[in-house]
Amino acid sequence: MRIALDAMGGDDAPEVPVRAALSALTDGPEDLSILLVGDPDRLEPAVRDAGQPPERLRIVPAPQTIAMNEPPVQAVRRKPESSIVVGLRLQREGEADAFVSAGSTGAVLAASLFVLGRLPGVDRPTVGALFPTADRPVLVLDAGANVGCRPAHLHQFAHLGNIYVRDLWGVEVPRVGLLNVGEEEEKGDDLAVATHELLREDPELRFVGNVEGHRIIEGRCDVLVCDGFLGNVLLKFYESMAGFIVGLLRREQAQAGGRSREPGPVERMLDYTEYGGAPLLGVDGVVVLCHGSSPPRAIRNALSVAVDSVRADMVSDLGRDLEALSNRTRRGEM
Amino acid sequence: MRIALDAMGGDDAPEVPVRAALSALTDGPEDLSILLVGDPDRLEPAVRDAGQPPERLRIVPAPQTIAMNEPPVQAVRRKPESSIVVGLRLQREGEADAFVSAGSTGAVLAASLFVLGRLPGVDRPTVGALFPTADRPVLVLDAGANVGCRPAHLHQFAHLGNIYVRDLWGVEVPRVGLLNVGEEEEKGDDLAVATHELLREDPELRFVGNVEGHRIIEGRCDVLVCDGFLGNVLLKFYESMAGFIVGLLRREQAQAGGRSREPGPVERMLDYTEYGGAPLLGVDGVVVLCHGSSPPRAIRNALSVAVDSVRADMVSDLGRDLEALSNRTRRGEM
Repeated sequence: MRIALDAMGGDDAPEVPVRAALSALTDGPEDLSILLVGDPDRLEPAVRDAGQPPERLRIVPAPQTIAMNEPPVQAVRRKPESSIVVGLRLQREGEADAFVSAGSTGAVLAASLFVLGRLPGVDRPTVGALFPTADRPVLVLDAGANVGCRPAHLHQFAHLGNIYVRDLWGVEVPRVGLLNVGEEEEKGDDLAVATHELLREDPELRFVGNVEGHRIIEGRCDVLVCDGFLGNVLLKFYESMAGFIVGLLRREQAQAGGRSREPGPVERMLDYTEYGGAPLLGVDGVVVLCHGSSPPRAIRNALSVAVDSVRADMVSDLGRDLEALSNRTRRGEM
Repeated sequence: MRIALDAMGGDDAPEVPVRAALSALTDGPEDLSILLVGDPDRLEPAVRDAGQPPERLRIVPAPQTIAMNEPPVQAVRRKPESSIVVGLRLQREGEADAFVSAGSTGAVLAASLFVLGRLPGVDRPTVGALFPTADRPVLVLDAGANVGCRPAHLHQFAHLGNIYVRDLWGVEVPRVGLLNVGEEEEKGDDLAVATHELLREDPELRFVGNVEGHRIIEGRCDVLVCDGFLGNVLLKFYESMAGFIVGLLRREQAQAGGRSREPGPVERMLDYTEYGGAPLLGVDGVVVLCHGSSPPRAIRNALSVAVDSVRADMVSDLGRDLEALSNRTRRGEM
């Protein structure tokens, strides 16, 4: 099990990715090895001090770095030796089984398309984000990779999410919902109405119907599909609100003279680091994204997601399922 | 100042609207009178016991009631003597200055269009929702009345929100933002890109640019426009999350053996009753909507919003502004 980790991605790279890698090697699976992709001058001292055998923590030199604000497609074209492109190339060439990055989401997306390519039957790879609920989290996709989706795209997202949740969370028949403004099937805009019909008529999915905004948190479904415009706004809003509320709670307690509060269920539910690691689904490989501001724990979690994805042979399962969907669609069965 | 109040609207009608009315008459402006619109048999005992002079609290009989789940347009057509239609008719006929309802939002929208009509220059009236921020709230519109908007609609929402915030909050030059997935002007779907251009080129608006999901809570703008699909999902998600977090906090405290916690800044920020009262803007009258689950305090707040709207002569200001926008658009200046 070899995971390529973008050691130059994120606000506090390479320190944070390196710490995450060491933590994963310490308490992760014994057959795990990590390829730290990045600037050797900055990585070598960290690795030298780590006391890991060289086969478990190895540096793969990548002299270029893509900044967060660079236009993704151009950056990927102009920087073939960037940590993102090199890291993905390791996977294509069979030297790594997965790639994890807290770098520019746009650049990872663009490079994944260039280097790994799409799975057959997938029009648009999608990023899934985890939203906490009263129960286990719900996988919302698309979380921002695709704005202006068509119904067939959302249908594919439903299948990608379905297999992901089945393979990684062990949910035998995941419940799939459609984010909408009302529960009735005729509710919503043209995209929602047409997507509702596709999902309802699909015998391969356990479609639980439209899910309104206030139902997300109730955990009514495991997979929730929507256009990436909505998913992106919703995800960013949720994260900012979570951070804001935790900040208010801490301030309130400090003013009351109390000691710093132990993280309770509120903080844990609000803390995205618990759930760190957004899967990019629909490319021919395992790619897991992290926030630029991820702490080591979030990247550590993303490494676990990558390990689980490889273990479950998720990419093969996704490929088979999406190809079958594509064939059914072509034969007019959908 | 005469406000018509839908006494049959909301989960706990007529008790809750009646309590809200009494509270408003007790500590509201002295020239306020309230017309309770609804079933006289149920309202008379409440009014008899209230000890208010009859000119300040008067019952206007409306024998029909529209349920929350009735299809709005048909319900409004079939029930011309419902509390919603009668209440709005009072305003059209000059017997009331505003209408407040916690009944079916769809029915109030449909009835407002039938009875009051649109202001000249308004294609689609809009419902604004208040989102709390670190500073004062932001008015998000459209909050669900309109899905599938065109750029010209969002442009009109910006003007409606702009005048509302100026007139009611006393903000001289409100900051107007566009909800989007990135800050750059080329970001987003077709609707966002085209709307960005309209707002940027409008000399009557202080456009602060695109606002991402995580910036809402920072209070970067006073008015935030988006399609009603997104606004509706976002609003419902926010409200449910707020309620969920407050519930978790209470439970945590109870388990810790503490007494029930006094509402702190967290609860207050999360508590929509503080902000109760969503304005319907763009119809020829003052209409304020409340949640079906509103407690008396939320309806009390909505009555204040109605009073302030009348005092500020908001409808005239909206009419002038939207007509001017329509003329500029027709002359090709926009």
